[in-house]
Amino acid sequence: MAESKRVFLVIDAGGTSTRAAIVDSSGRCLGYGRAGGGNPTSAGITSAVAAVGLAAEQARAGSDSTGRPPHLVVIALAGENTAAFREQVSARLAPLGFGPVIVEPDLLGMFHSGTHHRDGYVLVAGTGAVAARVAGGELDHVVGGKGWLLGDAGSGFWIGHQVARAVVAALDGQGPATALTELILETVAITTQPDSPAGRAQALKQLVSILYSWRPVQLSEFAPLAFRVHEDPVARGILVAASAALAELLSAVRAPNLAGPVIAGGGVLIGGFLAAPAALREQLLPTNNGSVIPVADGVVGAAVLALRSVEIDVDETLWHTIQMEVARVARLRQAGRAGRGQ
Amino acid sequence: MAESKRVFLVIDAGGTSTRAAIVDSSGRCLGYGRAGGGNPTSAGITSAVAAVGLAAEQARAGSDSTGRPPHLVVIALAGENTAAFREQVSARLAPLGFGPVIVEPDLLGMFHSGTHHRDGYVLVAGTGAVAARVAGGELDHVVGGKGWLLGDAGSGFWIGHQVARAVVAALDGQGPATALTELILETVAITTQPDSPAGRAQALKQLVSILYSWRPVQLSEFAPLAFRVHEDPVARGILVAASAALAELLSAVRAPNLAGPVIAGGGVLIGGFLAAPAALREQLLPTNNGSVIPVADGVVGAAVLALRSVEIDVDETLWHTIQMEVARVARLRQAGRAGRGQ
Repeated sequence: MAESKRVFLVIDAGGTSTRAAIVDSSGRCLGYGRAGGGNPTSAGITSAVAAVGLAAEQARAGSDSTGRPPHLVVIALAGENTAAFREQVSARLAPLGFGPVIVEPDLLGMFHSGTHHRDGYVLVAGTGAVAARVAGGELDHVVGGKGWLLGDAGSGFWIGHQVARAVVAALDGQGPATALTELILETVAITTQPDSPAGRAQALKQLVSILYSWRPVQLSEFAPLAFRVHEDPVARGILVAASAALAELLSAVRAPNLAGPVIAGGGVLIGGFLAAPAALREQLLPTNNGSVIPVADGVVGAAVLALRSVEIDVDETLWHTIQMEVARVARLRQAGRAGRGQ
Repeated sequence: MAESKRVFLVIDAGGTSTRAAIVDSSGRCLGYGRAGGGNPTSAGITSAVAAVGLAAEQARAGSDSTGRPPHLVVIALAGENTAAFREQVSARLAPLGFGPVIVEPDLLGMFHSGTHHRDGYVLVAGTGAVAARVAGGELDHVVGGKGWLLGDAGSGFWIGHQVARAVVAALDGQGPATALTELILETVAITTQPDSPAGRAQALKQLVSILYSWRPVQLSEFAPLAFRVHEDPVARGILVAASAALAELLSAVRAPNLAGPVIAGGGVLIGGFLAAPAALREQLLPTNNGSVIPVADGVVGAAVLALRSVEIDVDETLWHTIQMEVARVARLRQAGRAGRGQ
């Protein structure tokens, strides 16, 4: 009881949102915060640092750190870990009583959000797709993540791109009719009815014009449409191919002598394949019939990395405590915001 | 002999180059010229008009039109036929003694460059891919041509994109090794040797960085590499898929009651599939084993359209005369340029 517990600020800085938690060495969660995209590669350093700072301030609001030494920070981050980002984020967090800052790969955050084991695999399929083998708590081999133009088969972009191409082919008379056509026209607010040759030609012209005005990666917005009409043969064909591509990605990092769980993250897996009806899920889940552990983000894993960085043994019990604690405080905060009508 | 022959300026204004010929109603070719890209959609109206003007001046240099009435102009053109382009190109050509200007679809120019028949099919696979059914000398049904992001399966972009993705996958350890890797690294001047894990990682990083700095359509530059190493299983797989996609495109415009030749144009067909060794050509030519007539460009077809626009009957004999005459004068001009060291 007399022993002073160490406190940590742990952050998952994603492309869309940033999550921060304050945890202590017993696994207790003392605060939780959220902000917008905190990834410097996609949002730019200034925006990313601002988001990380905001999430940290929110997490701190619930905890009293007066008189304590600064709290060690672990940020789980995709993409390049630049000195410029580390310097600016350190300068932003120091006045709040946080530092020094350690930056870890987001894939390690995701992996450790799903397991206390130090060996295993992680497969993330969001807008992009990447897989990694984790050995001894470190990234041992990473495959994929080469972006929409050169890789990412099975990702949200890839599925959305196939959906767009299939609808263009259907309207052009080059591919089979599909339920995706109605959904995509509705999504981009084209009201022309494709129920005659002239209507199809007009809708096609409008659709092509709209989609070429987008940044290509925005086509990932169409990925959920394939899951929505997964009984449509065209949609199903796209999902089968995506599943095969993700299975191949995971196979590329498998090592015969390394066992361990498969942790799955990203919208295509969590909101897509894992949320699909059982029959579809069993048939399509791209993990070679092995079981997978889904994770929503990497904030629990960032806490695991923080505790381990100061030689705290995160065993199964402590890992469960961290996981339940972070979920409890995140829920409380969500309820609080809802209660205040925010 | 006393009958005065009508004279026409005929132009194929392509994305990469513009070809102009002056022909008379007997099929004789009186001049030939070449210039850069003359397509207003890709080059911009000003550049396109300049290219058309230059090609026309070169074609006129060899012929004497003093005292004659202005020569009718037919321009075969891909993409949108805008009033602005027609007005500006008319203003450019009028002082040279040419006008009025009729603009026709490039697909009709290509088709009539290959046959005197008025019914049949045309399949063009260059950077993009498009097919059309021609009936009664008019475009009856057109499929494809929806661009690199939304269509064009089997096109030069599509093949080059698959080549780039296959090499990225090979270097990343996600796909099989391929002879394309060496070719692509050489093409983009990466000298890092991919003969060790570290070398592969370094070459991959450089390649990804270079290719994302390109405009996506530039990936079509890699299409010839697949034909160069067509015995490589990865390259062959890409070519088989491209061939299937082009065969599907042609099928989409086929009508059971419309016979007629298949005219083939564009670099992927002319420089690729049709130039390949016999065994490959027979296996992969995407025309369902029917014979095809290759054409290099649409300038002969533009002449056919010009003569027919004034009710001249272009029968098989006249068509052959036009074709041989245009080829003869184009060769003479080429030899003349070579002789002058140009």
